[in-house]
Amino acid sequence: MKLRDAPPLETLCWLNSRSDITLEQLRGKVVMIEAFQMLCPGCVSHGLPQAMRVAETFSPDDVVVLGLHTVFEHHEAQGTRAALEAFLHEYRVKFPVGIDQPSGKGGAPRTMTAYRMQGTPTQILIDRQGKLRKQHFGAEDDLALGAQIMSLLREGDIEAAHAAGKTNTQGENCDENGCRLEP
Amino acid sequence: MKLRDAPPLETLCWLNSRSDITLEQLRGKVVMIEAFQMLCPGCVSHGLPQAMRVAETFSPDDVVVLGLHTVFEHHEAQGTRAALEAFLHEYRVKFPVGIDQPSGKGGAPRTMTAYRMQGTPTQILIDRQGKLRKQHFGAEDDLALGAQIMSLLREGDIEAAHAAGKTNTQGENCDENGCRLEP
Amino acid sequence: MKLRDAPPLETLCWLNSRSDITLEQLRGKVVMIEAFQMLCPGCVSHGLPQAMRVAETFSPDDVVVLGLHTVFEHHEAQGTRAALEAFLHEYRVKFPVGIDQPSGKGGAPRTMTAYRMQGTPTQILIDRQGKLRKQHFGAEDDLALGAQIMSLLREGDIEAAHAAGKTNTQGENCDENGCRLEP
Amino acid sequence: MKLRDAPPLETLCWLNSRSDITLEQLRGKVVMIEAFQMLCPGCVSHGLPQAMRVAETFSPDDVVVLGLHTVFEHHEAQGTRAALEAFLHEYRVKFPVGIDQPSGKGGAPRTMTAYRMQGTPTQILIDRQGKLRKQHFGAEDDLALGAQIMSLLREGDIEAAHAAGKTNTQGENCDENGCRLEP
Repeated sequence: MKLRDAPPLETLCWLNSRSDITLEQLRGKVVMIEAFQMLCPGCVSHGLPQAMRVAETFSPDDVVVLGLHTVFEHHEAQGTRAALEAFLHEYRVKFPVGIDQPSGKGGAPRTMTAYRMQGTPTQILIDRQGKLRKQHFGAEDDLALGAQIMSLLREGDIEAAHAAGKTNTQGENCDENGCRLEP
Repeated sequence: MKLRDAPPLETLCWLNSRSDITLEQLRGKVVMIEAFQMLCPGCVSHGLPQAMRVAETFSPDDVVVLGLHTVFEHHEAQGTRAALEAFLHEYRVKFPVGIDQPSGKGGAPRTMTAYRMQGTPTQILIDRQGKLRKQHFGAEDDLALGAQIMSLLREGDIEAAHAAGKTNTQGENCDENGCRLEP
Repeated sequence: MKLRDAPPLETLCWLNSRSDITLEQLRGKVVMIEAFQMLCPGCVSHGLPQAMRVAETFSPDDVVVLGLHTVFEHHEAQGTRAALEAFLHEYRVKFPVGIDQPSGKGGAPRTMTAYRMQGTPTQILIDRQGKLRKQHFGAEDDLALGAQIMSLLREGDIEAAHAAGKTNTQGENCDENGCRLEP
Repeated sequence: MKLRDAPPLETLCWLNSRSDITLEQLRGKVVMIEAFQMLCPGCVSHGLPQAMRVAETFSPDDVVVLGLHTVFEHHEAQGTRAALEAFLHEYRVKFPVGIDQPSGKGGAPRTMTAYRMQGTPTQILIDRQGKLRKQHFGAEDDLALGAQIMSLLREGDIEAAHAAGKTNTQGENCDENGCRLEP
């Protein structure tokens, strides 16, 4: 399988962030994107709470959690920035949330289309090199998600081990990474 | 921190297994041990269901889940093999469960003492080399546990990368391990 | 304690209903009103699901469940009829929902003020005579709520027994009402 | 429908009670019996916690909650008094629990047979006159159960109203019973 670059995020603006966010800036970190709509019950009950747990469990130096408001229905009801701001405030969502750029013709917005998402919630994992590694529509188990994120985090370590060419023993390596094991 | 070998399992017998199980046999795999008592509410509501989820989420070629019945109170009530067999049957616990060897003087049984466990449920993670890597009394989040298990699984890959001395690129490596990402 | 009449519902319009609803029309039935805001997390996770369970558990001949959208904050985000319609559609709320009449000065709307509600969710129970019998801000247990509703339902039976002046025996009375016991 | 008397409780002994308990003693109160087995997962996860909520929600002057340990399988594992005592201690069950009298031939014990129960958990409601009013195998909603219990409680009030022959008005009656509405 040839890995493909994660498409760029085309957004109207970002909330919970002082400046716009691009995937390029985040190279070197694992990125999880939670695509949601504020009036999507599955997003409110499962997707967003899980994304908040990910943001609490992993260090922001390792894993960056982003929300993406991909409005593809009820544009009038949930399409305003004010509505989303109120929603994020009430649900105590602290991570940055981008508003996906409307297509101008109704229907799915641009980033949603570029990723060919099937609906909301959709969970996306991007590795340290900016490659799209997972895209999942619907609910995902915490146990599997935790494993997937750590697998991507550890790839960097493997790369570093190769690059360094050191005869690093397991025992020494473990000590340095002990904190990562117990988030 | 110097890693120590996980103490051997001293058991009276094993249920859900045709033969006795030793940690030596399991070298090369990550082992999770769920120490529990059948009359411990936290074990029944959290610990055992989580261990069952781990057994379903990871391949048995990678992660072995074991139960350990560490009776340290109510010996008369929960100390018989018949009681435990009935319990495992009713709660549909399918993984092997060892009965921790009683001390002969009441109180904590032998493996529980060797590991210096504080109570039940206690969750133990042992790495591919048989080293004790985590011991946790009480409830643990699925997200963190999934990450911890994958971190131990990936250590073997790092070791293999070192041993092989190959200039394995990230892209190639990912393809081969893609299945592991989506358990 | 002197019981007071439940204040009239002052609404902009009603959704999920062909015509406007007044408490006068509902005399003879027990009425439960769930006052909520679409961007109130406690309303979405507890209040509205409970109101939906009440509507499913009791016969509409006995108990009428109404929603009241009492917007007292984030007026711009949740103050439009379109937003509420989309919300009710997505969350499958089928019972009638009135939009509380804005005060015209921001802040709490008129019905909310007339009832002196403290916030959302607020649960209101009105008896068969239109008297306000319970007003509760926050979460309520299902067990207690089921008992409260049945207590109000049974008052009518007591009244009827008095009015009839019959020497109705318990045994006979029970047979007739047996179905009410198993909603 | 002719109501039948609830069969007497045939028990080996009672735990959480200084003396044996008979249904005759409880005339005038509503009685809820939770028949369970300590190794029945549905009893542990749903039946017993619900019975504990009932005991907390209603006044013991109105509603008496009893457990009945109806062992019909795994007799060796859960058939001893010591095992049940340990179980009740660990799960913090405070209400009286009778051990159903074994038949002497294995299989269902005597009270379970007399009530023709289908399994565990089984929930039984007995009215103030000692009549069997509900018997339910499996899980029951809190909302419906709360309503059923209050319906039985209110029957006594209707009887009292008839007996008194007073021209009691609804308003006055409600005041006196206001506390009952908010358990």
